[in-house]
Amino acid sequence: MGEPRGLLESLKGPDDLKRLEASELPQLAAEIRDLLIQSVSRNGGHLGPNLGVVELTIAIHRVFDSPRDPVFWDTGHQAYVHKMLTGRADRFATLRQQGGLSGYPSRAESEHDFVENSHASTALSYADGMAKAFKVRGETDRTVVAVIGDGALTGGMAWEALNNIAAAKDLPIVIVVNDNGRSYAPTIGGLARHLSSLRVSQGYEGALEFVKDNLGKVPLVGSPFYDALHGLKKGLKDILAPQAMFEDLGLKYVGPIDGHDEQALEEALRRAKGFRGPVLVHAITRKGQGYAHAENHDEDCFHSPGAFDPVTGEERPKPHGWTNVFAEEIVRLGRRRDDLVAITAAMLHPTGLAKFAEEFPERTYDVGIAEQHALTSAAGLAMGGLHPVVAVYSTFLNRAFDQLLMDVALHRLPVTVVLDRAGVTGDDGPSHNGMWDLSILQVVPGLRIAAPRDASRLRELLAEAVEVDDGPTVVRFPKGAVAAEVETVGKIGEADVLRAGDPDVMIVSVGPMAAICLEAASLLDAQGISATVVDPRWVKPLDEALVSAARAHKLVAVVEDNGRVGAVGDAVARMLRDADVDVPVRTFGIPQRFLEHAKRPAIFTEIGLTGQDLARKITEVVAKRSPVLEDHPTS
Amino acid sequence: MGEPRGLLESLKGPDDLKRLEASELPQLAAEIRDLLIQSVSRNGGHLGPNLGVVELTIAIHRVFDSPRDPVFWDTGHQAYVHKMLTGRADRFATLRQQGGLSGYPSRAESEHDFVENSHASTALSYADGMAKAFKVRGETDRTVVAVIGDGALTGGMAWEALNNIAAAKDLPIVIVVNDNGRSYAPTIGGLARHLSSLRVSQGYEGALEFVKDNLGKVPLVGSPFYDALHGLKKGLKDILAPQAMFEDLGLKYVGPIDGHDEQALEEALRRAKGFRGPVLVHAITRKGQGYAHAENHDEDCFHSPGAFDPVTGEERPKPHGWTNVFAEEIVRLGRRRDDLVAITAAMLHPTGLAKFAEEFPERTYDVGIAEQHALTSAAGLAMGGLHPVVAVYSTFLNRAFDQLLMDVALHRLPVTVVLDRAGVTGDDGPSHNGMWDLSILQVVPGLRIAAPRDASRLRELLAEAVEVDDGPTVVRFPKGAVAAEVETVGKIGEADVLRAGDPDVMIVSVGPMAAICLEAASLLDAQGISATVVDPRWVKPLDEALVSAARAHKLVAVVEDNGRVGAVGDAVARMLRDADVDVPVRTFGIPQRFLEHAKRPAIFTEIGLTGQDLARKITEVVAKRSPVLEDHPTS
Repeated sequence: MGEPRGLLESLKGPDDLKRLEASELPQLAAEIRDLLIQSVSRNGGHLGPNLGVVELTIAIHRVFDSPRDPVFWDTGHQAYVHKMLTGRADRFATLRQQGGLSGYPSRAESEHDFVENSHASTALSYADGMAKAFKVRGETDRTVVAVIGDGALTGGMAWEALNNIAAAKDLPIVIVVNDNGRSYAPTIGGLARHLSSLRVSQGYEGALEFVKDNLGKVPLVGSPFYDALHGLKKGLKDILAPQAMFEDLGLKYVGPIDGHDEQALEEALRRAKGFRGPVLVHAITRKGQGYAHAENHDEDCFHSPGAFDPVTGEERPKPHGWTNVFAEEIVRLGRRRDDLVAITAAMLHPTGLAKFAEEFPERTYDVGIAEQHALTSAAGLAMGGLHPVVAVYSTFLNRAFDQLLMDVALHRLPVTVVLDRAGVTGDDGPSHNGMWDLSILQVVPGLRIAAPRDASRLRELLAEAVEVDDGPTVVRFPKGAVAAEVETVGKIGEADVLRAGDPDVMIVSVGPMAAICLEAASLLDAQGISATVVDPRWVKPLDEALVSAARAHKLVAVVEDNGRVGAVGDAVARMLRDADVDVPVRTFGIPQRFLEHAKRPAIFTEIGLTGQDLARKITEVVAKRSPVLEDHPTS
Repeated sequence: MGEPRGLLESLKGPDDLKRLEASELPQLAAEIRDLLIQSVSRNGGHLGPNLGVVELTIAIHRVFDSPRDPVFWDTGHQAYVHKMLTGRADRFATLRQQGGLSGYPSRAESEHDFVENSHASTALSYADGMAKAFKVRGETDRTVVAVIGDGALTGGMAWEALNNIAAAKDLPIVIVVNDNGRSYAPTIGGLARHLSSLRVSQGYEGALEFVKDNLGKVPLVGSPFYDALHGLKKGLKDILAPQAMFEDLGLKYVGPIDGHDEQALEEALRRAKGFRGPVLVHAITRKGQGYAHAENHDEDCFHSPGAFDPVTGEERPKPHGWTNVFAEEIVRLGRRRDDLVAITAAMLHPTGLAKFAEEFPERTYDVGIAEQHALTSAAGLAMGGLHPVVAVYSTFLNRAFDQLLMDVALHRLPVTVVLDRAGVTGDDGPSHNGMWDLSILQVVPGLRIAAPRDASRLRELLAEAVEVDDGPTVVRFPKGAVAAEVETVGKIGEADVLRAGDPDVMIVSVGPMAAICLEAASLLDAQGISATVVDPRWVKPLDEALVSAARAHKLVAVVEDNGRVGAVGDAVARMLRDADVDVPVRTFGIPQRFLEHAKRPAIFTEIGLTGQDLARKITEVVAKRSPVLEDHPTS
């Protein structure tokens, strides 16, 4: 169970696939679906999207010559079948396990993988660049393939790329739109409606012929109506299969194709390959195809389940997570304030906004995979007198940094951004870790950032955040089970004292790092080093009261689950320097490199963010400095 | 000269404008153009775009009821006429002067201004948000107007917004496309071609009637061809005025309208206002209209000249700037290496790439106002074996932070980003200052950043940057005249020593701060404080050799023209802490707030970044610390 069998077992790469008879492909597809269900049911991962692209991926690898013809997947979470067909079926059971296959394409894994793109809407830009490079280098026989979901097409950078690709008549780029009508949830917006109008127009060819024949009888042959007549034919075709939008941009359009008819797909792709110019192939697929529990799963078609029972489709129960706390609290706040509105970028359920949307549908906006628009439309909502809450994964806020800075903060607008999946996320690899926000957000003038350490603090800080009316606020929390409650034993200004100590070491604990900081403090105690532990709650701006508290200690240690560079540690150090307080500071966080995928606890151990590591490192610093600890200059 | 006269003088706001007779408007337009030319010729500013929107702005303020109907300008540099018509004509001569009118809309200036949007493609998102807010608040009689250039439509976030607006049938948003076929230079891409096909189709109405009459004779009345026939009419209209792309998205389309026919504009806008839903009005304007020197200026229609002679149109000569040095050097490098390609986001001339494009047209890509695509297509080019150089203003790189991090750096691709206008830019206000890059780029793993101090170092560091083949590089330099050459008197690792001193103070000078650092060092010398001045050249990663150099000093001061938060100063401090070197550090840079517009030297004085300020502040720190300077702990 979970091992490839039959035809799949025999495939070492796309060449073997090309040698199969067409009649063998349905069996291969069944084997692939079985392996997908067995593996993801054990390890979790992206199931629905991959069940939907089985035939499409087979067709692509039979028609094109990967890696000579590069294939880009947008997003990369739909590349599981691609992995199986490019020689990795035998290792598929290791998916998302430490040392095993990545859940995304990975250049280290295979020459068939080009990018680790888990952030949506990038594939067309890569494809445009690569095709241009081939042209400059004279390698004009290579075709570049980009597979993009209809959801990813709602992202602005996909449009920027389409605009460029359409203008490049001689670049052989095949854009395969994998149209399942959904990202996590159904795709929104004018484009989705347009795609859906394309979708219902299958079978228009016959009608077209009939009407064209009759059109020949219209008595309009003289100029200037010759062009108009020519236009009639195009116009007619548009209404029957209104690909106008793409063709208006200058893109050839092939479709719509049944994305589960492998032979039809092959035919369409061969035609597209023959154009030697940019062409869009529109494939209609069904998310979760071939697994009833996924097909019938209304919320997201088993987009990305945790472990589940492959027979019953039941997910193993998850612990009560941070997302749930936010989900409950935002509903409570929404009941109290009718000016509170919520925005998601195509992630209503994953960000915990579904309950709010159910209760306040007219105050909830799903803007598509469009983080830029999410932030700037939030600015507009705030200007219009409302208080928007934008809920987004930490890593995806990077897409809207400029909008938060220039459109929200410059105008001091009351927008609250709620960052889920901040810090180490683990399984999904380097691009999902939310290890950037505490750094890049430091530069935003007037922005306030809260980092709750437990569920009570999340409720409390979220409530405080939506009360701020003169600028943006951010509330950030990690993935997974909510941390144990940690009581406050005192206050330093706005900061909570979690443990009072003598004037040896002050540990500044950011958000959910409280547990390991307290553990470190206990271990230090055993060695005769007394540690105060404080949680600033609001990590930007830091309360000035921390300066005098720091002055009363001999060492300040800052601990955070963010990249070490430019985050709260650096901010504490700068605050002290600016006050001419030269107490030594040491900062602990995520090393500033891309982390390979693994379980969160394994990563914390690997990067040395455990109570024991902290205690050891702090002890070392104290030992080195001990001759002067008693009389270092403090002002 | 430069003062409003005649009709313009009498207008205190849009209400006065509405009372004018239509017959008086040509005179008003002439007065506005005269004031534009007189003022910009003295102070510099955005001339071409504003000459192009005189009639459009008059029509908007006669039809809509600002500020009750908010008007968003995309970008804000086309809002000069709007300023004149909303009660600011009498202060227009102070444009872009310290304490005077801003060169962009400004909330502080007028209730008619909503955003300071100088970054392109944002207006539709603001409009979407504001219209949604009005709906939630029940203020359904208000209309939201967004004026957006065809250039700004190439930006991805404009598309994200269109996708949302098109789906919101009941939001009264009037999108005015100000189509002059250009951003700085002619607009590129499939969209531009589509708009231009719309442009040539004026006068299609008559033809439409004739053809529709004849179509009635086609013998197709039975289902299922009824729909097809209905489609014929739409299709015909599409080919004669192929607004299909917008209507496919679900947007009403009105146009194209002659953007210099004020009465036609008013009529179209009144029709659009009447829809009470999203509608796009397509106005064809001419950049520089009414001023021959601008109309005939091939490069950019006097987009944004410095001071010039209003009679001859001759610009006052500019000093040899950083941009020129880059422009020459990149051509030289391009001659040596045929794998070097260049990318600009609609700013071929302003970024200095025009000469390169002239010599290597097939290796130059203008991607439109699309920084995201610029970076990710650069990633694709690099994967394809080339070395792309992306030239962009520092402030606009914020738009592509995620792409630089996830698409370029994660894959360790050799892409060089050249940042012009880094540091304080001045006249153009808060959103143009390039004061963020040295901070947010610190977090990008594997990225190297060079900050040249003078022309020789720019040549040298650019050459080094394009030699790096295992990851991205950034070269950043400021606006304006190139700094005087500063000789190297020694080396510390890769860093240049600019002045050797005794072990008192080590000043780390970033890029063009060298001059004020050396001035400060001389002033300190006079007070018996000896200062070493070093220029790291590569500010990320910092050369470890600086650690032992720092250890030999009693104070380290870091000076940079970037926001103080998270930039090189913090990086130096962190490097020392991580090496357990607790030499006191002080960091000097731009205070972390949005800077009001003023001349660069005035801003440097205001924020205390002068040689005298530095010397004074360093002296103060030394004085405070003097009792212990001799024996502070160093390891």
